[in-house]
Amino acid sequence: MTRFNFQIHATSGKARTGTIQMKRGDIRTPAFMPVGTAATVKAMKVEDVRATGADIILGNTYHLMLRPGAERMARLGGLHAFMGWDRPILTDSGGYQVMSLSDLRKITEEGVTFASHLDGSRHMLSPERSMEIQRLLGSDIVMAFDECPRADQSRDVIARSMEMSMRWAKRSRDGFDSGGEHAERSALFGIQQGALDEGLRQASADALRDIGFDGYAIGGLAVGEGQEAMFATLDFAPGQLPADRPRYLMGVGKPDDLVGGVERGVDMFDCVLPTRSGRNGQAFTWNGPLNMRNARHAEDTGPLDERCTCPVCAKYSRAYLHHLHKSGEMLGAMLLTEHNLSFYQQLMAAMRAAIAQDRFAAFAADFRRDYFQR
Amino acid sequence: MTRFNFQIHATSGKARTGTIQMKRGDIRTPAFMPVGTAATVKAMKVEDVRATGADIILGNTYHLMLRPGAERMARLGGLHAFMGWDRPILTDSGGYQVMSLSDLRKITEEGVTFASHLDGSRHMLSPERSMEIQRLLGSDIVMAFDECPRADQSRDVIARSMEMSMRWAKRSRDGFDSGGEHAERSALFGIQQGALDEGLRQASADALRDIGFDGYAIGGLAVGEGQEAMFATLDFAPGQLPADRPRYLMGVGKPDDLVGGVERGVDMFDCVLPTRSGRNGQAFTWNGPLNMRNARHAEDTGPLDERCTCPVCAKYSRAYLHHLHKSGEMLGAMLLTEHNLSFYQQLMAAMRAAIAQDRFAAFAADFRRDYFQR
Repeated sequence: MTRFNFQIHATSGKARTGTIQMKRGDIRTPAFMPVGTAATVKAMKVEDVRATGADIILGNTYHLMLRPGAERMARLGGLHAFMGWDRPILTDSGGYQVMSLSDLRKITEEGVTFASHLDGSRHMLSPERSMEIQRLLGSDIVMAFDECPRADQSRDVIARSMEMSMRWAKRSRDGFDSGGEHAERSALFGIQQGALDEGLRQASADALRDIGFDGYAIGGLAVGEGQEAMFATLDFAPGQLPADRPRYLMGVGKPDDLVGGVERGVDMFDCVLPTRSGRNGQAFTWNGPLNMRNARHAEDTGPLDERCTCPVCAKYSRAYLHHLHKSGEMLGAMLLTEHNLSFYQQLMAAMRAAIAQDRFAAFAADFRRDYFQR
Repeated sequence: MTRFNFQIHATSGKARTGTIQMKRGDIRTPAFMPVGTAATVKAMKVEDVRATGADIILGNTYHLMLRPGAERMARLGGLHAFMGWDRPILTDSGGYQVMSLSDLRKITEEGVTFASHLDGSRHMLSPERSMEIQRLLGSDIVMAFDECPRADQSRDVIARSMEMSMRWAKRSRDGFDSGGEHAERSALFGIQQGALDEGLRQASADALRDIGFDGYAIGGLAVGEGQEAMFATLDFAPGQLPADRPRYLMGVGKPDDLVGGVERGVDMFDCVLPTRSGRNGQAFTWNGPLNMRNARHAEDTGPLDERCTCPVCAKYSRAYLHHLHKSGEMLGAMLLTEHNLSFYQQLMAAMRAAIAQDRFAAFAADFRRDYFQR
């Protein structure tokens, strides 16, 4: 079994479809990775996550290092055994979430010290410690430890942050490579920074390429800059990264973000949106989002989405889902999460098929017509 | 297909095992009915409820009449279609829950007026309206409308309440029988009252037998009187009811309550305990209950229960369930509910097998030895 192999089967414009082969299973790209923050994709049984079509899920280093703890997780046999998912898991580095703790953390060249949001206890993350934690978790795709600055800061601030992230990328590479057996069966991705600036993005891409990674993430987007600015950056950023390696747009996004990302050459995505929205009563459909708490669904015996093939749409009415969400029933969150994750995977599968048939532009136009109902 | 047929296959002491045949499916007795208050067994997909071994579930008239509303439910095709459960459903009459609204309700011979706990709106329940609502829901086993007084009141209060419940039982019978097609495919159970008093219980049983029902419930227990007083009442109450009809002990109970109830001739039970406990971190096992929030489970790689055959015990460790409950993850509630309901059904199946082999006393002794670890 290969450690990590990425094969591109077809392209359509800048869009690509392919397969990442890893020891724990194949990942069809473009891929959407459901987020399993605390060793669970919220409100979902893990076999149901797989049944939606997910090939890989994401785990969060920050949450897992605090609870149950990285060393404890290793003693328990690693994240896969713990949560019952035997396919690939990508773990983030913890960097992004630690940065979000604004008042609670201190950044130096060495790394970041921070206080736990759970109990205020002091912790440290550095490139080396992040690699160690991701190894202890048993991650299949390890993310380099980086700083993710707000995109609205000065070019100088963004530049200095990016340059430190590139030094951290090298330390991440060295830390990962010293991981022995784990390094032989898992992969390491670097993360491009530089916010919305084409020159900084190019410098970051060059630095990462010099170090060498299995895949390359586009970091520092989807942090409040808006879709237009994100797409403007994605017009150049993916092309700066090695064409023969997977490109992963972190933390994105809405269905139309995914279509726009694939259109611009992105291969992988993750986002809490389908799961979080499912808990909050928002359903994604081919005809746009629906708020299931809205009274107009109260006597609607139709499914959430006529085109959706998920078990929820096969079995339940909008009226029932409305009732469950109005009543605050856990099953409402469970069923809407299942539908949303399934819809996201159906969208990815449709994009893969459209690319394979070299009709992605037409697919994207049809998608937007239906999704925005215009 | 038969409307309602109860066949007793075997007895062991006072314990009986049999089958209730109904148009929507068979119910193996002794039976435990999971509670699906608001058109959902909380935190469970309905196919998973069936997979635990449940033949029948319970719906609550009070909750459903308020939300989504009985007439709306009928327009939506009834409770079965709404929630996706095609097997028998027993609905309570709403009486018990309305009585619990202490400050918000007024009882007269006609019925009960009360204010909704949701929005304070005024509603009325009477024997006739309760029968109508249960018909609109599409219930398979309809419960007579009764008053369930606190057991600690004077014999005189209990007696007058029981006598009114018997007049309401007759009105329930008449209301049910006027239900046309619904009456031809569903069943009506009367409810014995009389608290802990043998004479009042006998008078109630006689009154119900004169009216005639498909099955007979033992009401007014599990309302705070304690297990000893409940068992003392169950030493005589089931025997006062027709031997050829199912006897249903309402709102009971803990695993040891179920064993003690079957031992005394009870055929059917319902209780929120396995579902509510599952959400609160309590697991039931053959060796007694476990609090999964307890830190002693944090590194325990064993299953909840070595003897349990449920999917949760097959797949997950105590450490994982502990982590989920400590983290407040919905999956913790989902998995523990599934285990608890499955454990309850395994307990019922074991009791049925022990009765069939006429070794119920030995089974009960073994159960108590293991459950109380003595």
